[in-house]
Amino acid sequence: MKCRVCRGAAVIDVRRHNAYFCGEHFVRHCHRQVERAISDHKMFTTDDRLLVAVSGGKDSLALWEILLKLGYEADGLFIGLGIDGYSTDSAGYVERFVEKVATPAGATLLRVDLQSDFGYDVEQAAASTGRAPCSACGLSKRHLFNTAALDGGYDAVATGHNLDDEAAVLFGNTLRWQTDFMRRQRPVLPEGNGFPRKVKPMIRLSERESAAYCVVSGIDYQVDECPMSAGNSHIRYKEMLNMLEESSPGAKAEFYNGFLRNLTPILDAETSAMSDDAQAPAIGPCGRCGSPTDNEVCSFCRLLQRVAQPASNVGDSISG
Amino acid sequence: MKCRVCRGAAVIDVRRHNAYFCGEHFVRHCHRQVERAISDHKMFTTDDRLLVAVSGGKDSLALWEILLKLGYEADGLFIGLGIDGYSTDSAGYVERFVEKVATPAGATLLRVDLQSDFGYDVEQAAASTGRAPCSACGLSKRHLFNTAALDGGYDAVATGHNLDDEAAVLFGNTLRWQTDFMRRQRPVLPEGNGFPRKVKPMIRLSERESAAYCVVSGIDYQVDECPMSAGNSHIRYKEMLNMLEESSPGAKAEFYNGFLRNLTPILDAETSAMSDDAQAPAIGPCGRCGSPTDNEVCSFCRLLQRVAQPASNVGDSISG
Repeated sequence: MKCRVCRGAAVIDVRRHNAYFCGEHFVRHCHRQVERAISDHKMFTTDDRLLVAVSGGKDSLALWEILLKLGYEADGLFIGLGIDGYSTDSAGYVERFVEKVATPAGATLLRVDLQSDFGYDVEQAAASTGRAPCSACGLSKRHLFNTAALDGGYDAVATGHNLDDEAAVLFGNTLRWQTDFMRRQRPVLPEGNGFPRKVKPMIRLSERESAAYCVVSGIDYQVDECPMSAGNSHIRYKEMLNMLEESSPGAKAEFYNGFLRNLTPILDAETSAMSDDAQAPAIGPCGRCGSPTDNEVCSFCRLLQRVAQPASNVGDSISG
Repeated sequence: MKCRVCRGAAVIDVRRHNAYFCGEHFVRHCHRQVERAISDHKMFTTDDRLLVAVSGGKDSLALWEILLKLGYEADGLFIGLGIDGYSTDSAGYVERFVEKVATPAGATLLRVDLQSDFGYDVEQAAASTGRAPCSACGLSKRHLFNTAALDGGYDAVATGHNLDDEAAVLFGNTLRWQTDFMRRQRPVLPEGNGFPRKVKPMIRLSERESAAYCVVSGIDYQVDECPMSAGNSHIRYKEMLNMLEESSPGAKAEFYNGFLRNLTPILDAETSAMSDDAQAPAIGPCGRCGSPTDNEVCSFCRLLQRVAQPASNVGDSISG
């Protein structure tokens, strides 16, 4: 098959766009999709300083590389999660990317390590709090990304969530009609209440395009899924959406984009019609670390308290 | 396994309710679910005269039988669709049901036949209008049920849509975020604008429960799917929801009930906030038949005009 743009030999088909691309024009296609997500959703400009949450996987490394290629000022933050074998491997992919791509482009990698900086790993956090590992991990990452962005004076935290990720999260929230979660599922969460802005510039690229981008661009990434995520319902939702996409190319993008286009305005209208009291709990500083929270002590500090406690309390769950 | 109620030998498990039932208590379970749908959604009372849309399939025959057993006044309406072989078979199931169940309970069967009453069948309607067969069939049925209900002075038209049907329709509408369709997907559509009330008393029973109800109650029904529905996306959505239900019993009911509980109030609030003009097009009588329509001539009369036209116009589509 031939490239849609130059008629040269194609290396990939993107069925959703009914298009084939050679390597060069596939890279341009990906850059254009990221640029379009950034401008459609007014995510940030070249005046903003971005902090990219990098895991060593395809999405975050592709995102960081694309942002640098497009001329944005973007540093990275890697969090060592202490997941046996996996985290060390992930760090290696990030380090090689920094040496090859980020440093030459003038970008910096920040690092946080759960074990050496806070004395726990994801497995311990899950066990001490009674949370699922993905929940304990997500809580830790959100807190540390927010803190690092504010401490470093960054304008926004950029994450590598791709179309498949966003569609799967939406699918899970929709199957249960968790309208509170749906309300917050946006390509941009504005800064405010002590939280930095959060942006998802990869939402117009599928998982497969993100992986192909890395291959074509010579970015070596952690291919394995996190060993702690096995059995995660997120993965099942992705499989169902892939079945749908297989028989109706474009269905996944239509599901996610249709939500943004048709439902979010209705949810927004309802939110603004609610009284301030009903909209959201009051946010104030955490009594321990000063991070914004709707509690006296934030979830992260409660997690730290739990992991520091003796094992007799294991299994009690914490909320929030 | 043993019946949840009497500890007798169970004939069916209902995983969603984590329950096994013997024949007698399964019948009671089904009756209770229908009663609960009727009361939860204020569908009708024993003072109302109901017209049940009967096809000869499990859902409509089970519905008619249950309504009669529960003491409601319910006649039936069968529409001969002229689908080769299938429609004649379906009529046979309905006739045997009427003889065995409906007539002894004092209920009457009304009949309409597309070919002898209106000079067309579903296949011709699809060909003349460029609609898919299911669309041409649905249009015809909706018009004829409405007309028969109003002509006969019935208070409501009851259809056999079960939980699987409603969940699959909702799933299709949700995948495209067709909020206008979602707004109208209700267990009850109130009468008004010249339309009769429409009710769906089977929404708390799955397809499997409906079939089992017929088997246990000795109701013989048309098992085959309509031959014209093959490849229908509705069937694919049912398969996907069945996959989900398989791994998470209750997920299908949670999807449908969660929609009614969490999203419909938000859609309703938005509808009432809109101006009258924006809410819906003006409804007036059809210039030919007097049925309510947002056009000069209703979709059914336009369908009749099309099927009466020479074949040269075949393939032009009609809207609405």
